[in-house]
Amino acid sequence: MHNFCSDNVTTIAPEIMAALERANSGPAMPYGNDDITRRLEQRVAEIFERSVAMFPVATGTASNSLALSAITPPFGAVFCHEMAHIHVDECGAPELFTGGAKLIPLGGSGAKLTPPVLNAALAQEWRGNVHHSQPAVLSLTQATECGTVYRIEEIRALAEIAHAHRLLVHMDGTRFANALVSLNCSPADATWRAGVDVLSLGATKNGAMAAEAMIFFDPAMAATVGFRRKRAGHLFSKMRFVSAQMEAYLTDDLWLRNARHANAMARRMADGLAKIQGCRLVHPREANLLFVTLPHRVIDGLEQAGFGFYREGGVRTIRLVTAFNTDMAAVDAFVIAAQQLATGGPVTMTA
Amino acid sequence: MHNFCSDNVTTIAPEIMAALERANSGPAMPYGNDDITRRLEQRVAEIFERSVAMFPVATGTASNSLALSAITPPFGAVFCHEMAHIHVDECGAPELFTGGAKLIPLGGSGAKLTPPVLNAALAQEWRGNVHHSQPAVLSLTQATECGTVYRIEEIRALAEIAHAHRLLVHMDGTRFANALVSLNCSPADATWRAGVDVLSLGATKNGAMAAEAMIFFDPAMAATVGFRRKRAGHLFSKMRFVSAQMEAYLTDDLWLRNARHANAMARRMADGLAKIQGCRLVHPREANLLFVTLPHRVIDGLEQAGFGFYREGGVRTIRLVTAFNTDMAAVDAFVIAAQQLATGGPVTMTA
Amino acid sequence: MHNFCSDNVTTIAPEIMAALERANSGPAMPYGNDDITRRLEQRVAEIFERSVAMFPVATGTASNSLALSAITPPFGAVFCHEMAHIHVDECGAPELFTGGAKLIPLGGSGAKLTPPVLNAALAQEWRGNVHHSQPAVLSLTQATECGTVYRIEEIRALAEIAHAHRLLVHMDGTRFANALVSLNCSPADATWRAGVDVLSLGATKNGAMAAEAMIFFDPAMAATVGFRRKRAGHLFSKMRFVSAQMEAYLTDDLWLRNARHANAMARRMADGLAKIQGCRLVHPREANLLFVTLPHRVIDGLEQAGFGFYREGGVRTIRLVTAFNTDMAAVDAFVIAAQQLATGGPVTMTA
Amino acid sequence: MHNFCSDNVTTIAPEIMAALERANSGPAMPYGNDDITRRLEQRVAEIFERSVAMFPVATGTASNSLALSAITPPFGAVFCHEMAHIHVDECGAPELFTGGAKLIPLGGSGAKLTPPVLNAALAQEWRGNVHHSQPAVLSLTQATECGTVYRIEEIRALAEIAHAHRLLVHMDGTRFANALVSLNCSPADATWRAGVDVLSLGATKNGAMAAEAMIFFDPAMAATVGFRRKRAGHLFSKMRFVSAQMEAYLTDDLWLRNARHANAMARRMADGLAKIQGCRLVHPREANLLFVTLPHRVIDGLEQAGFGFYREGGVRTIRLVTAFNTDMAAVDAFVIAAQQLATGGPVTMTA
Repeated sequence: MHNFCSDNVTTIAPEIMAALERANSGPAMPYGNDDITRRLEQRVAEIFERSVAMFPVATGTASNSLALSAITPPFGAVFCHEMAHIHVDECGAPELFTGGAKLIPLGGSGAKLTPPVLNAALAQEWRGNVHHSQPAVLSLTQATECGTVYRIEEIRALAEIAHAHRLLVHMDGTRFANALVSLNCSPADATWRAGVDVLSLGATKNGAMAAEAMIFFDPAMAATVGFRRKRAGHLFSKMRFVSAQMEAYLTDDLWLRNARHANAMARRMADGLAKIQGCRLVHPREANLLFVTLPHRVIDGLEQAGFGFYREGGVRTIRLVTAFNTDMAAVDAFVIAAQQLATGGPVTMTA
Repeated sequence: MHNFCSDNVTTIAPEIMAALERANSGPAMPYGNDDITRRLEQRVAEIFERSVAMFPVATGTASNSLALSAITPPFGAVFCHEMAHIHVDECGAPELFTGGAKLIPLGGSGAKLTPPVLNAALAQEWRGNVHHSQPAVLSLTQATECGTVYRIEEIRALAEIAHAHRLLVHMDGTRFANALVSLNCSPADATWRAGVDVLSLGATKNGAMAAEAMIFFDPAMAATVGFRRKRAGHLFSKMRFVSAQMEAYLTDDLWLRNARHANAMARRMADGLAKIQGCRLVHPREANLLFVTLPHRVIDGLEQAGFGFYREGGVRTIRLVTAFNTDMAAVDAFVIAAQQLATGGPVTMTA
Repeated sequence: MHNFCSDNVTTIAPEIMAALERANSGPAMPYGNDDITRRLEQRVAEIFERSVAMFPVATGTASNSLALSAITPPFGAVFCHEMAHIHVDECGAPELFTGGAKLIPLGGSGAKLTPPVLNAALAQEWRGNVHHSQPAVLSLTQATECGTVYRIEEIRALAEIAHAHRLLVHMDGTRFANALVSLNCSPADATWRAGVDVLSLGATKNGAMAAEAMIFFDPAMAATVGFRRKRAGHLFSKMRFVSAQMEAYLTDDLWLRNARHANAMARRMADGLAKIQGCRLVHPREANLLFVTLPHRVIDGLEQAGFGFYREGGVRTIRLVTAFNTDMAAVDAFVIAAQQLATGGPVTMTA
Repeated sequence: MHNFCSDNVTTIAPEIMAALERANSGPAMPYGNDDITRRLEQRVAEIFERSVAMFPVATGTASNSLALSAITPPFGAVFCHEMAHIHVDECGAPELFTGGAKLIPLGGSGAKLTPPVLNAALAQEWRGNVHHSQPAVLSLTQATECGTVYRIEEIRALAEIAHAHRLLVHMDGTRFANALVSLNCSPADATWRAGVDVLSLGATKNGAMAAEAMIFFDPAMAATVGFRRKRAGHLFSKMRFVSAQMEAYLTDDLWLRNARHANAMARRMADGLAKIQGCRLVHPREANLLFVTLPHRVIDGLEQAGFGFYREGGVRTIRLVTAFNTDMAAVDAFVIAAQQLATGGPVTMTA
């Protein structure tokens, strides 16, 4: 596979496909009243070292937007980075599910928020003033849209500010596993122990077919989620096939193994590209996304050679995403092609 | 399988499971920009004998509610039977996706609407009067929640009334295949040739894992659907795995074969139960659902014997649903057990 | 005035016009931070004999829908009579403000709900079942759309059922004063002492220009109302001119005096019409609305004579509404004209 | 009046109060089916030199948000200045009424947008991409929240960009009259001839009690507004009392006379303050709002002297607003007091 467009162009990990087969062995009661879903809830509780309220869904947009809707009133405000997926790439899903809450986009390099930025945004006297949307939630993306990763202490610092202003903390964990292996800490340390109240845990980009989970570390916050999920059309009748994916994902460290491979491939690619004249990493490499500045002719040549990637709007920067099943040979081929193009030589190996 | 609770307790048909395996052979571009989804669109056009706008989703609630939202303004009214799934069983999903449109529940035996009922509802002078929700859509369920099936001429009569009042016609086809084989007509005859504008075509209950499709017979009506699907979180990144299910479903008549089996099992069960003293079918058997009145002790005995089914609220009526993979032996066992219980004898064969 | 179409065709009561003049004597801080609004809140508390949360708005639809939105989740259900203004005449405003909650229309003669009807509706096992909108509110209209009035004990019986099912009780009091003088009891007895949680108190139809108030008898229920009112565009910058109307309305028994006159005029009209052959009151006369069945030629003749009233759809029934300023001579003229038309004679006195 | 907090702290202009009295002379049919509303529509058409669709409402938030909801799909995006009232001060009303559309805040000095800023925002490839809210509307505030005024050619330039990207142009004209007299051009030149599609015309801040109007220069764009206004609770039964205010406002140049006075008072105040050491106008004075930087002790002294104004958050800047009825003596008193405070002397004249 020479397609570095996204980790969502990937196939299903064999362990997850096998779990789907197993889940298909006989009938089961619908809507989550099945053994697999019950086991999954226990598994999530074990992994996160506390009892949680857990709701499987099938898309990241559903997971993010429904989670936000449970903790944001319709007149609420969600503070997030201006590059956050919930703000830029969900066509207004949080607005739909919350009933019209407002997302407040904030700046910060590498798609990361910082305490000064958050403090400045919260410094305005909004609380209790009926003219303004009421601060309700801070949403952090982990790993970020730039492939960077919040350190534990960074999460804690932001969460403390948020909680001091009576905001709850949501984490968009579409690539949570990639961040986790990058941080090399426990799931609990990376989330609730650092102040995260609700996690949207992704699996789809890291080997599942379509499986995500909303995890509320305080089950009391989740009182309305079952109803919200149903009325959004995200309660699956044959739920066990969503739960089975997530269960396999969280079994035998599959999620971590997959993420480690993806991150390793990104590192290998970054190391290779670093040696190329005129090549520059736009953000630190910390997970499985690279934003790389290259000469135009290199970019054009790579495209012509058949490599798949996205160009960022109007600039000499491309986005490269590695995945759980990225072939090391593909990475090497890409690096070699880039080197050859950069030095003016012909590309001897095509994708 | 002795579980007659619903056709959503079933496994995945082997042909569909095989299609998922095939779809997993390599990477593919996301969000429906893949070959399988393109093929599916052509397949649907062939089957329905006209070009359509087709949108795969994963749940029936999403399919119904998003389809309605595309053709109902927020101040609109959707006329449906008072037992319609969209009114009773979706926790307000149509209201969410339409932005607050109103569902107008109407009566009628066997969960079927009739021209007099619809005419009476539309006779009020609502059109253009700003005080009232504006009539926008007639939604018919085919097969109905009672297991009955609208005849072609019944659909046509209702659609003509609807169109005369400038309403569009939506069909909730969660069990469309069961209705189609019952009617023994072409998909086109059962839908747009009879006046249906939009079909929510189900596959999940008839052998798929999670696959439905919104089919707009006039693509111009679907201009907003892509955006609505995305902002509802129902655009799957790995869409090909939804499309692959639907493609397999519509290939080699799988949908019709599965539905014929389900209907045949319902007929066999109905015929068997008809011989029991005190047993009465509440509605005509026309698809794969039976509502059967039985003596209390028979119902209790069947439950104790391990058969799965739902009791209707507070009465001596049970709902029995057969499916694409219902075992004839299970049907026969159920009938025999009911007979033995009805005649006061012991149940010799348990589920 | 010979216009009996509605009590909303009326002018402004002189006492209320004078209050507007007085409120215009100088500048005042906006958005309710003014002395008049503060006084009004105290006045409402006095009249209802308890501290309340009170929110002036300018239309009955706003008052009803915002009040409902404060106590109904987006996945909630509001039980009301099928003729209720909130269900029939607000173009989906409750659905908009609640974010898509469902109104459940129930039957009952005279536009009144009864315990058996409510019990039957609540008997379905909906609580906690994610497939169904969750029962949240019972809304009663007092006086009803038919001009009938709930007795105190009727309210109490319905409220007890509602509370037993964990519903809150909303009262649409567009014509609350008309009901109150009909019941001849205190405002407290007619509301919270009988189990009403939230009252939408109307003044517009009884002499105001545009003034209504949401009154929450438990202020804790009103925590979100300020924000909801603002984001619905119903927070007036020059609020004092709304509050001043309501203050005048509740001063020196103006609301009761106005309502007594309106009711008395309705009684006089009913008594007069009762003597006419072929004339029949459809509902008991208890407030200021009459629904009267008359021969077609009488109805046509009254229209030709210039009297204003609405015909009910397709039948020989007309609606007559009296108001705070209905002229006794106009009532008598109407009765005489109807008598003359009924007996075949010429109409000697025109409107 | 020494209150310079806002033009919404003002009384009602005598001409408008007189119009309310006249409108109260007799009954009238409700909901805008009255002579005054019909006359108003004609008057607006005359003033703007074309036939329009016109909808009176009572608050600016309603006028803005309902107008936007008529031209923005729920998945749409409205581009506006980051200080725009619709973005900052309406608690999410546009989001509510549009069903969740997104406001995109843009920068620019003096609360004015510029072509480069708008072009940059629109340069992203959003059109037709289902992942992103779809560009729908450009909203300009005239006069702006900073008291600046868009020149005709500035409006035209922005509108041309908007239209080239298939956006419609909305103008928040809360202080439209103040801008108009500042521009000294015709209403038509200031709006549709410069590319404005919809105007929210304010009167409340310039002498009315509560009167605004949505004016659609292409009536076809207004097809849904009647329904939207009703379901938002903004259709007044006694509409004539809203229309009467607006009619008086637009009669005998009252709106222009009032605005000229307000602007003149702002100019007088600005000229006076300009002579004070350490006093600086933050934005050009072009309408009736001033943002003035003053030494802390001057600001404190003015407050202690009883003058009313708002302090901007955390800085030495105050906002001063003049109105249709601002007393020249009050302006002079304020300037003198500021001068005395700035020069260290005692304040000899208190507010």
